[in-house]
Amino acid sequence: MIGWRQAVVESDCRAVRDLVAATGFFSAEEIAVAEELVAEAAAKGADSDYLFLFAEAADGDLRGYSCFGRIPATQSSFDLYWIAVAPEEQGRGLGREIIGRSEKIAADLGGTRMFVDTAGREQYAPTRAFYERMGYEVAAWIDDFYAPGDAKVVYAKALGAAA
Amino acid sequence: MIGWRQAVVESDCRAVRDLVAATGFFSAEEIAVAEELVAEAAAKGADSDYLFLFAEAADGDLRGYSCFGRIPATQSSFDLYWIAVAPEEQGRGLGREIIGRSEKIAADLGGTRMFVDTAGREQYAPTRAFYERMGYEVAAWIDDFYAPGDAKVVYAKALGAAA
Repeated sequence: MIGWRQAVVESDCRAVRDLVAATGFFSAEEIAVAEELVAEAAAKGADSDYLFLFAEAADGDLRGYSCFGRIPATQSSFDLYWIAVAPEEQGRGLGREIIGRSEKIAADLGGTRMFVDTAGREQYAPTRAFYERMGYEVAAWIDDFYAPGDAKVVYAKALGAAA
Repeated sequence: MIGWRQAVVESDCRAVRDLVAATGFFSAEEIAVAEELVAEAAAKGADSDYLFLFAEAADGDLRGYSCFGRIPATQSSFDLYWIAVAPEEQGRGLGREIIGRSEKIAADLGGTRMFVDTAGREQYAPTRAFYERMGYEVAAWIDDFYAPGDAKVVYAKALGAAA
């Protein structure tokens, strides 16, 4: 039984860092960034540019989360900055539910498009396949972005009635 | 006679805000962001992710500037976040010199690519033409990014020996 929460509290910093690290998927720099965004949102409260959705087990254990928000200098474009699901929870549809609920929150705030950045290299093939199953389409493939030979891939999805 | 300076001081916040506003090209939100980046760099000093290059007249008046830096989570990609030239200085090659010197600084720090985001709409046609004259190529054209019907265009240029 999963509970959903949007408000950010200080203890989420550690829970998110541990969750993101547990996936084994992210670099130390990426893990630090994930934690930093939570800390900023906890400090700024309702003024934060970063919105969160936490999926928790009945005992309060974090099972997955997303971080998203309106992209500065855009009218109604949102970016899904982070989505992560605890390893033992993967393959059960929690990622799909987190992304769907995040899109709904963004659409309710007037969002018309959700963007998400990922990478072109082989390690990210399952990630790209996941976004494609969620209805995202490649909006850009930028070679040599993360490093020489390591492309950034930008996915986009229209929000609204269909979301 | 233009003097060049990289170190950021508190008074640059106001000078940059005034310069960016004087171009008549940017929204209030964009002007606020430009100033915010200077304030962050002034506060953080050498720890800042944002590097600056200021072009000043002999009397210290700011004639143009750039803000650039390594893109977080990339190995050696840089982004040219801002470049602006005072209206009365435009068309005299100062923009070209600012961009060339910024690329050189980035390359000396190990940068291999410079990216720059701009917009696809008509107002930005001269901006896009400027980047193309500087050797930048379109790496991505993302429709409906800034607003429905308002695309983001990402330009890229390889740095190094040629820069």
